[in-house]
Amino acid sequence: MAAGTDTAHHTDLGSLAGDLYGPYREELVAARLLIPLGVRGLYARGGDFERVIERFDALVTEAGAPFAAEVMRFPPVFARAHYERLSHIRNFPDLMGSVHTFTGGEREHRDLLEIFDKHEDWTARLAPAAVMLVPAGCYPLYPTAEGTTLSAEGRRVDTEGFIFRHEPSDDPARMQIFRQREFVRLGTAEQALEHRNFWLEKGQELFKRVRVPVEAVVANDPFFGRGGKVQKAMQIEQVLKYELVTPICSREKPTAISSCNYHLDTFGSVFGIRTPDGEPAHTACVGFGLERIALALFRNHGLRLADWPSEVRDVLGLG
Amino acid sequence: MAAGTDTAHHTDLGSLAGDLYGPYREELVAARLLIPLGVRGLYARGGDFERVIERFDALVTEAGAPFAAEVMRFPPVFARAHYERLSHIRNFPDLMGSVHTFTGGEREHRDLLEIFDKHEDWTARLAPAAVMLVPAGCYPLYPTAEGTTLSAEGRRVDTEGFIFRHEPSDDPARMQIFRQREFVRLGTAEQALEHRNFWLEKGQELFKRVRVPVEAVVANDPFFGRGGKVQKAMQIEQVLKYELVTPICSREKPTAISSCNYHLDTFGSVFGIRTPDGEPAHTACVGFGLERIALALFRNHGLRLADWPSEVRDVLGLG
Repeated sequence: MAAGTDTAHHTDLGSLAGDLYGPYREELVAARLLIPLGVRGLYARGGDFERVIERFDALVTEAGAPFAAEVMRFPPVFARAHYERLSHIRNFPDLMGSVHTFTGGEREHRDLLEIFDKHEDWTARLAPAAVMLVPAGCYPLYPTAEGTTLSAEGRRVDTEGFIFRHEPSDDPARMQIFRQREFVRLGTAEQALEHRNFWLEKGQELFKRVRVPVEAVVANDPFFGRGGKVQKAMQIEQVLKYELVTPICSREKPTAISSCNYHLDTFGSVFGIRTPDGEPAHTACVGFGLERIALALFRNHGLRLADWPSEVRDVLGLG
Repeated sequence: MAAGTDTAHHTDLGSLAGDLYGPYREELVAARLLIPLGVRGLYARGGDFERVIERFDALVTEAGAPFAAEVMRFPPVFARAHYERLSHIRNFPDLMGSVHTFTGGEREHRDLLEIFDKHEDWTARLAPAAVMLVPAGCYPLYPTAEGTTLSAEGRRVDTEGFIFRHEPSDDPARMQIFRQREFVRLGTAEQALEHRNFWLEKGQELFKRVRVPVEAVVANDPFFGRGGKVQKAMQIEQVLKYELVTPICSREKPTAISSCNYHLDTFGSVFGIRTPDGEPAHTACVGFGLERIALALFRNHGLRLADWPSEVRDVLGLG
């Protein structure tokens, strides 16, 4: 934890063993930073929480400004047909969010309500809609570039959107739905790697400026099942993804608040995105998990914005 | 359309009969304001589109500032258990978004993938998650006040979130998922009605300032089926909901960009929210459909921000 960190306003992370999910969540709720919505890992965001997210988001915008990336803001759902071309259903089926709706007529509606009123499972009467919740920040982007050939400069895209992960948890940093700000690079392997490496450095610099101590580690995603172990080993061995981690509710299990990911030509191949030489494009992205970053800031500087160190307030433009 | 409206950059609404969904959508896409995501009514938002939303949102914040409302920002999903206590499944089942996920083990996963790889309906193997997509901006709010007794002043809450409506359409103003900014009032019938009436006036004033011509009409929601006709008649007769409408893609069928809704004691009764005298609280809300408002602004002032009238740019702080 950074020197000068205020611990008077919240549970002291250093003094406790084990996880602090419960106590820290209660403090966040008491401070009206998070408002529970009756499902584990689901919260409304209070005014100060949202303000911190907006201000950190603006800091990221500033850091990315020199690249003049194209801006795209994604809605929380994307095409089921695009989801079906990705490997998410193989690797993370337990995290998916499939959207279903009612497509029947009046008779089917009467049947639906009869089941509903008997408190039986009415959801079996629904049909899959053409959309799924977005499981990763950059997934909706690649299909929009389908069948294109990039220029020699490639592309840089600035994205943001809500990400859904079905993983009910008491850890306030493990929300079921949260915003991810990303910069995505499409181009050659060299361009993609350069992007990932640049942001790995730049991200550490940003967190240093707001006094959130981070450590860069090789990432270790929760691939599903026994087959997932092989995927996990491959991911680590190829050193494709780094995460910046910081203690939020636990020193032993620090939380990833940002990640830098090199996807090889996975998305370029699936969506036929090519470099000028006709090869599948390589892609990389940096993602900032905005809710987790806000939680890390409140963890390090206290639950009241007015008490934050003036240097941090200045960097974030908190006035 | 306001005097001085620039029509050089887009299809002239006045010169065409019938709907302009197709042509206007194509212009928005060509201008990179909307980026199609492969499903009818689903788009990424370009940089200028998002900027206009941010600026109008700030104007709403300014208009609401005197009331110092509590701020809550809702995620795009809320509790299924709360959905089940509302009448949405009776009145608008065709618009709902129910979230389903995979809850099986390794064997069930192998079965899922076998079905998936045969291009059969794999979604039947999913289970309902504890969440639903949010169908109306203020729905997630009331359960957070469950069982409370309001003070004599009641409560004012400033909310925003993504709303899902399953209604695939070629009308760019009929998106499947969009943001709604709301101010919600909880209190006595008088307080609720005063809130609705205040914002009905204030909303018209805001749109006048940004030169979007609106008309206030009694709303007419698309209740489902034959039974819905009764609901619709009741809604109109009780004059519960007003909408501010403006032509976007059609003069004959103008689009609602804001609504002012008095809910009587519906939510107060369902969630046991009471006024000091022990009666169920009455509620009212004003909602601003941010994507539709951006579309109305681009429709009236042209697709290029640089060409907008300087007065409008000034009011919105577009620099």
